[in-house]
Amino acid sequence: VSAESASQKKEASPEEGRHDGYETLIVTTKNNITKIMFNRPDRKNAINHQMYREIIKALEEAGKNDSTIAVITGNGDYYSSGNDLNNFTNVQPGEMEKMAKDGAVLLKEFVGHFIDFPKPLIAVVNGPAIGICVTVLALCDLVYASDRATFHSPFSQLGQSPEGCSSYLFPKIMGLAKASEMLLFNKKLTAAEACAQGLVTEVFPDSSFQKEVWARLEAYASLPKNSLAVSKQLLRGMEKEKLHAVNSRECEVLTERWLSDECVNAIVSFFQKKSKL
Amino acid sequence: VSAESASQKKEASPEEGRHDGYETLIVTTKNNITKIMFNRPDRKNAINHQMYREIIKALEEAGKNDSTIAVITGNGDYYSSGNDLNNFTNVQPGEMEKMAKDGAVLLKEFVGHFIDFPKPLIAVVNGPAIGICVTVLALCDLVYASDRATFHSPFSQLGQSPEGCSSYLFPKIMGLAKASEMLLFNKKLTAAEACAQGLVTEVFPDSSFQKEVWARLEAYASLPKNSLAVSKQLLRGMEKEKLHAVNSRECEVLTERWLSDECVNAIVSFFQKKSKL
Amino acid sequence: VSAESASQKKEASPEEGRHDGYETLIVTTKNNITKIMFNRPDRKNAINHQMYREIIKALEEAGKNDSTIAVITGNGDYYSSGNDLNNFTNVQPGEMEKMAKDGAVLLKEFVGHFIDFPKPLIAVVNGPAIGICVTVLALCDLVYASDRATFHSPFSQLGQSPEGCSSYLFPKIMGLAKASEMLLFNKKLTAAEACAQGLVTEVFPDSSFQKEVWARLEAYASLPKNSLAVSKQLLRGMEKEKLHAVNSRECEVLTERWLSDECVNAIVSFFQKKSKL
Repeated sequence: VSAESASQKKEASPEEGRHDGYETLIVTTKNNITKIMFNRPDRKNAINHQMYREIIKALEEAGKNDSTIAVITGNGDYYSSGNDLNNFTNVQPGEMEKMAKDGAVLLKEFVGHFIDFPKPLIAVVNGPAIGICVTVLALCDLVYASDRATFHSPFSQLGQSPEGCSSYLFPKIMGLAKASEMLLFNKKLTAAEACAQGLVTEVFPDSSFQKEVWARLEAYASLPKNSLAVSKQLLRGMEKEKLHAVNSRECEVLTERWLSDECVNAIVSFFQKKSKL
Repeated sequence: VSAESASQKKEASPEEGRHDGYETLIVTTKNNITKIMFNRPDRKNAINHQMYREIIKALEEAGKNDSTIAVITGNGDYYSSGNDLNNFTNVQPGEMEKMAKDGAVLLKEFVGHFIDFPKPLIAVVNGPAIGICVTVLALCDLVYASDRATFHSPFSQLGQSPEGCSSYLFPKIMGLAKASEMLLFNKKLTAAEACAQGLVTEVFPDSSFQKEVWARLEAYASLPKNSLAVSKQLLRGMEKEKLHAVNSRECEVLTERWLSDECVNAIVSFFQKKSKL
Repeated sequence: VSAESASQKKEASPEEGRHDGYETLIVTTKNNITKIMFNRPDRKNAINHQMYREIIKALEEAGKNDSTIAVITGNGDYYSSGNDLNNFTNVQPGEMEKMAKDGAVLLKEFVGHFIDFPKPLIAVVNGPAIGICVTVLALCDLVYASDRATFHSPFSQLGQSPEGCSSYLFPKIMGLAKASEMLLFNKKLTAAEACAQGLVTEVFPDSSFQKEVWARLEAYASLPKNSLAVSKQLLRGMEKEKLHAVNSRECEVLTERWLSDECVNAIVSFFQKKSKL
């Protein structure tokens, strides 16, 4: 057990600046930084419906409070395995359409909060990231990654389609030739590849990741707060309307996908394989 | 003669799944993949007017048939040397304007079919690529290249101007500083450079190129077909209108170029140099 | 003293093709190239109000004259240290608003001339570049850099916000994850990093920089002139309206910044540190 994971464990215990009212997250504010930590480590920080709603709430709080920057990270070995596929199970046949529609409403609201977030938002990717957790990285202002991190968005494997504005932002960041490999053909990127393609700002050795990154974040949090906020709004402002339109369109397409035979069969197959392990 | 070129030669013979009605292409459908192969190897797969029309027809067929993906590649040593400059010769002085106008109509339709192609379109760049064959790569979803491939768009050298939506897509993919080098100043890229700049998805050693690439393509062709098609449409959808506008504008400018002294002189000079070799 | 710096010194003396009427620049036209050289080497080529106006005038002349391309570079060790912070001093308390408003009008006009420049514009970055001189590089068509060059835009450090269309173009070129590091968090890039991120076309060893670059520029200047101009306009044309809107918005935000306590305090602190050295 390294010094870093020891310090991470300490974060998980009650502490100064911890926000109340979260079960799937640990949210703290200290030294002008609000940290939103995914906290379902035994489920690889998969995002169930409750966790989507808690992340939305935490982003709202962090956007309004006095902190200069906000940080998203994961507790444990994973950053996050993305959408919890159990969100699809236990649905009665007659309720499939309601499930898909409600899921899309929640997803759209979730992604919308990343689009509208008013101050610098920094992802600290401590380990593997999958699906929706990869795509919304393109809506963060900085992405620091451990060299243990990987980036995987296996949409077509699951009969689904891209979300999180990735259908617009990934081609913009890395060009269609690289974006299609990830979004259509399920390519899993190493941290170094994700950095070369502009999805990640910088990669750090896992052994010094937390220490190096948090030293930087503390320095950033002491910069002029309003200057950072208006600068971020300038960079985001021109795109905001387009990003909301992309988000809506992606959620519409995904709703149809969730009700398709291709998707249902792919998810059934996923659970069958899992149960055989 | 390597195993790969032997297998390529086999492709050139009549075979299962071969589409009728093509003289300048070999078009086949097998294992959910429609392959469109440029087949004027003795002319470095230069595209004459017939070949433009046959590629348009092949894209229409591939877009409508049952295949999951479509692939474009070249027979022989070249991917394609681009627009056949013989398209400009044998034009009577009084017919220059008609030639330019007809050429622009054909080019616009050609590029338009890449913009509108409804399923994943993958370029397998087996060797040097020039001009229009380079620019429309940015309209393909994946670009796999042999390390023998080069990428050259010498528009200003020939008194011409960028087409294939490259004036919009190249700066978007690689930034203006790199795009101008290619599109204004005739820089020829190696496969590795084209990959670093996001025009190419991945480069393979020529000795294993066909084998490695086709193994991947067969895996891709077994993914959920509708999921791939709607995902591709999402990535392309937001851009489609803009791409058609860019295509129109580029064709207008190019028509003027074709009628300019700069262009006429540059093409005459090209053939004079060639005849001296 | 190398052969290159000797030849640079010679440029600073009266010579064939030198344009009249400049005090802060040396402007020459020779071999179809108009060269605009920043010439306040003792002030690290910092741009005071006179120099902004002279650059605007030089761009107007270069845009209209017979030269095929225009080149911007710096005399001495620096490319340019950016906006001269003395522009902010000697302002009477009651005149702050006027200073900010006038400064924004001048900046908007300055950047507008880069947006509208009608022929290829090439930056030859001979040394460190800071602030506005870094951001407008994204409006140049090619950027050649010595390996001595660095690229630094410390806006938030000075309580300010991005200009030169960088809030739009930097994320477009390099993705938000890299752009935010430069524009929000004051990261200084080496020439190699700036090249990897698409802001710079190519980096040269300082010892051969002038020789290699000018050999290329002379070759470029012999290409068909109209072909280059219309091709550049194609690449720029689709963006022009958007770039002007971004420029306006950035100047509005910056005017507010200049009047903010954060900015005033940061600039006072800058001069206090400097006077202690």
